[in-house]
Amino acid sequence: MMSPPKGSTATVRQSPEHQSVSFDLKQYLSQKQAEVEAALDRSLPLAEPKTIYESMRYSLLAGGKRLRPILCLATCELLGGTPEMAIPTACALEMVHTMSLIHDDLPAMDNDDFRRGKPTNHKVYGDDIAILAGDGLLAYAFEYIVENTQNVAPQHLLKVIAQLGRAVGAEGLVGGQVVDLESEGKSDVSIETLNFIHTHKTSALLEVSVVSGAILAGADAAVQASLLRYAQNIGLAFQIIDDILDITATSEELGKSAGKDLTAQKATYPSIWGLEESRRQAQVLVENAKAEVASFGDRAIPLMAIADFITARSY
Amino acid sequence: MMSPPKGSTATVRQSPEHQSVSFDLKQYLSQKQAEVEAALDRSLPLAEPKTIYESMRYSLLAGGKRLRPILCLATCELLGGTPEMAIPTACALEMVHTMSLIHDDLPAMDNDDFRRGKPTNHKVYGDDIAILAGDGLLAYAFEYIVENTQNVAPQHLLKVIAQLGRAVGAEGLVGGQVVDLESEGKSDVSIETLNFIHTHKTSALLEVSVVSGAILAGADAAVQASLLRYAQNIGLAFQIIDDILDITATSEELGKSAGKDLTAQKATYPSIWGLEESRRQAQVLVENAKAEVASFGDRAIPLMAIADFITARSY
Repeated sequence: MMSPPKGSTATVRQSPEHQSVSFDLKQYLSQKQAEVEAALDRSLPLAEPKTIYESMRYSLLAGGKRLRPILCLATCELLGGTPEMAIPTACALEMVHTMSLIHDDLPAMDNDDFRRGKPTNHKVYGDDIAILAGDGLLAYAFEYIVENTQNVAPQHLLKVIAQLGRAVGAEGLVGGQVVDLESEGKSDVSIETLNFIHTHKTSALLEVSVVSGAILAGADAAVQASLLRYAQNIGLAFQIIDDILDITATSEELGKSAGKDLTAQKATYPSIWGLEESRRQAQVLVENAKAEVASFGDRAIPLMAIADFITARSY
Repeated sequence: MMSPPKGSTATVRQSPEHQSVSFDLKQYLSQKQAEVEAALDRSLPLAEPKTIYESMRYSLLAGGKRLRPILCLATCELLGGTPEMAIPTACALEMVHTMSLIHDDLPAMDNDDFRRGKPTNHKVYGDDIAILAGDGLLAYAFEYIVENTQNVAPQHLLKVIAQLGRAVGAEGLVGGQVVDLESEGKSDVSIETLNFIHTHKTSALLEVSVVSGAILAGADAAVQASLLRYAQNIGLAFQIIDDILDITATSEELGKSAGKDLTAQKATYPSIWGLEESRRQAQVLVENAKAEVASFGDRAIPLMAIADFITARSY
């Protein structure tokens, strides 16, 4: 599913006693993605009642870039943490993200029939099971973090849980979706409202993906704050690029219906700024994100490459 | 809302050096209920975006018996814990319970127009906001426990979070609701299936209400196990009585549509056992529940009285 930009090998010049190193983002992402896929598969074995487990697994294992889990793993590693510390939270982030996709796709919400090239959850299992599959994934995310995380102090784990809860609820995803629904069909949506929607609907979960990785690794407040700013910048860049792709890409390339924003008369960055200015703004955000982690040196190369990947991505 | 049985003063004879004490359940429940109402009101102040906070507050503050929070508080107190230890979890239990009611009432599920004598959430706010209000309450429950609990060891709090997650997800509420939906309209639902539905859909949350109170107070495994059995017994008794009331009470008394189980051709305990045998079974379960906590002496009087209240309750 994940297609890094062509020529995604980053070369970073270092202090005189080191040689410059080259980094193969494509290989890095493939490897992390495979680790996440295997961990997700293990996280939710089929059980009784079968219908609900099948429905949860159908959406959780439907592919996708796994950007949120990878951000969590990469940040934890950047700070010297181990995969054992971060993998359960990485899986939980994808469970929460999947819940939001299942519920957003419902006829009562965005009414989408396809997601990642496959029929949406409710088209296969019905609206009732789709609602319950989302609820089940959301509740399981918190349980899974507690039951499976290793070598992390309990008070750090509690902080991860609190931040994940906030990122999903009315102060995060849910709040963003509400304002998004309220803005549909309105021709006078302001840039402030559009920013509110996306900082809540998209950025909040990307932010906790990065910050949870930092908390799990035991980062201090200053490091957490710097990584939060990295995440805020890539979060907004990510959404701007999503809006651009909705206009420029085909449904086949997206794996979901293209042009939906136009049809739904949704306010988007290109509709306010135009395509060129939107691309420029996304590029500025990515540069700001990279600047936030530059002081970590070589270890930040994966996070810097992921930031670049966001503006360069093609489906 | 809460109407304890008439003459609900329990008299318990004690060891020779003590006088017998009398316990006013009605007063106890009223006082606890008032504490819970105030705590719930404080837990979720109105904020932006208003629609979603209004929708969440509409259902969270719609009254009800507050049985789950009271069980948590009473169990924590029984073991010498303070209200500060248990009130955030007590509120979280009601948030989770409210989420399950909002989602179960949706047209895609049980399609109920009234709940606690008021229009259901989706009738007031629409299906989309109702789905999101449930998601918001579920996510907030976990955040709220972490951010507000005082004087509880972090590892105990993590255990509460894991058990709450399990009680809500596919191993609990969600799993029970799925089998309930699958059984609707079937004339050959077995007693095993009916038990599965109710141990998951109703008992799981009542169990974690009691057990979380024990964990918060620092109870050892044996005490937790004994209180779990208390909860399992009252959980099933509670559901049997609910089934009986669906037949014998009016809609006005219930605050929701009466006779819905018959209309939906739902399997119920009275439909399998008849009314009299159902009442007898509920009574046996309540006696078993009381026997589990008898060894705690005076301190168990609230839990024993609550068990009695379940079979005697009238709306």
